Amino acid sequence: MTQNIYDNPEFFSGYSQLGRSVEGLDGAAEWPALRALLPDLRGCSVVDLGCGFGWFCRWAHEQGAVQVLGLDVSEKMLARARAETAYAAIAYQQADLERLKLPDAAFDLTYSSLALHYVERLNELLAIVHQALKPGGSLVFSVEHPIYTAPSHPGWAANADGKRIWPVDGYLVEGPRTTDWLTKGVVKQHRSIGTYLNVLLRQGFSLTHVEEWGPTDDQIASRPALADERQRPPFLLVAARKGSAR
Amino acid sequence: MTQNIYDNPEFFSGYSQLGRSVEGLDGAAEWPALRALLPDLRGCSVVDLGCGFGWFCRWAHEQGAVQVLGLDVSEKMLARARAETAYAAIAYQQADLERLKLPDAAFDLTYSSLALHYVERLNELLAIVHQALKPGGSLVFSVEHPIYTAPSHPGWAANADGKRIWPVDGYLVEGPRTTDWLTKGVVKQHRSIGTYLNVLLRQGFSLTHVEEWGPTDDQIASRPALADERQRPPFLLVAARKGSAR
Repeated sequence: MTQNIYDNPEFFSGYSQLGRSVEGLDGAAEWPALRALLPDLRGCSVVDLGCGFGWFCRWAHEQGAVQVLGLDVSEKMLARARAETAYAAIAYQQADLERLKLPDAAFDLTYSSLALHYVERLNELLAIVHQALKPGGSLVFSVEHPIYTAPSHPGWAANADGKRIWPVDGYLVEGPRTTDWLTKGVVKQHRSIGTYLNVLLRQGFSLTHVEEWGPTDDQIASRPALADERQRPPFLLVAARKGSAR
Repeated sequence: MTQNIYDNPEFFSGYSQLGRSVEGLDGAAEWPALRALLPDLRGCSVVDLGCGFGWFCRWAHEQGAVQVLGLDVSEKMLARARAETAYAAIAYQQADLERLKLPDAAFDLTYSSLALHYVERLNELLAIVHQALKPGGSLVFSVEHPIYTAPSHPGWAANADGKRIWPVDGYLVEGPRTTDWLTKGVVKQHRSIGTYLNVLLRQGFSLTHVEEWGPTDDQIASRPALADERQRPPFLLVAARKGSAR
């Protein structure tokens, strides 16, 4: 089973105070870009891998999805999701993404925000996701960008001119990375963009969009600290389809 | 017109002494990975964008391609290509990739090795490439990896532990980068992986493989200096198809 860092009290407390936890989807700067990759959800059946507090599940329901399944490894997050986003169309279940089971050809959309970089057995998970999608169904997900996860010492440094640089090493050395974020010893799986995309292609997905996310000019104008994210992208957003892309 | 750095005497002299110029395709460490992406060439019509000394054109001819068109901006390179790889099935033409003209639905394969990162008008070029491919035809190309081209100061640096790092900045700031390589003032176009892939998808290509190239264990064993390339990939290899991927 993947490390369940979200049920660590220190991590959970820190995570609960992030903008994206307090403000919901609009607290995540990459949300507008991720939303733009989603299909029309009216009448759709949706599964969210790593649903957290259920913000996306609620949004999907509000967009007209008729059945929404939110899965998360964290009982703490699910408890809050159930309490705050209790709708008949939304079901929440505890699930380990390393050994997921889903019904065949049941979903129009599989969504996942910043969860798949915790998963070791990505190939197996994406095989199950592919099987669980209806023909023509969509997979839209975000992960931490490989440039962000690669370094042995992730964090801004300065070059000889005093300019901020992101010190990349180990980019092609895939595997676990242990970092201190909100608490000590958070384990993520680093893999290259090529690996993410080729795993999808091998499973029979067609790629429809690949975005190395960075802030828009408007976002930087209202939050100048976001400008650094243009120096190296923090997130990778991918949209794929089961079957032919067109 | 793109800067024609290859006809600069200092650049041409330096380039002519590189392993890939002296030894041909086998002098390029990424060639086995790029070759693995190519379709069976027997009976095929092939165009090579940035054919240089004609090594690939000759190889394609040897693999059974019946018509091979080698295009390059450099008259010096074409002169050597014509002299050293003169076969009836191969034609060489001087061409500016910024305003390329190709016949419609004429080729089974468009190949390009380390040329497209010089091109400013990539969208326009790939529209022409798409139109010039037969239905189901392939595009296989390599470019310098965006992690390699992004930095304002490209070159290895050391982190606090004395380990080699590659100092990334400006990754999402696309546009020209001027570097000194073989001669001063070589201009390349930096763009993200996402941009390369989305331009292809918008033109109607299906992606079939995306590889952030690094050396194999065997390559490092015989050339230990290649190990650094695992810290940050030097090349991006892409395979795409006109029409559906399968």
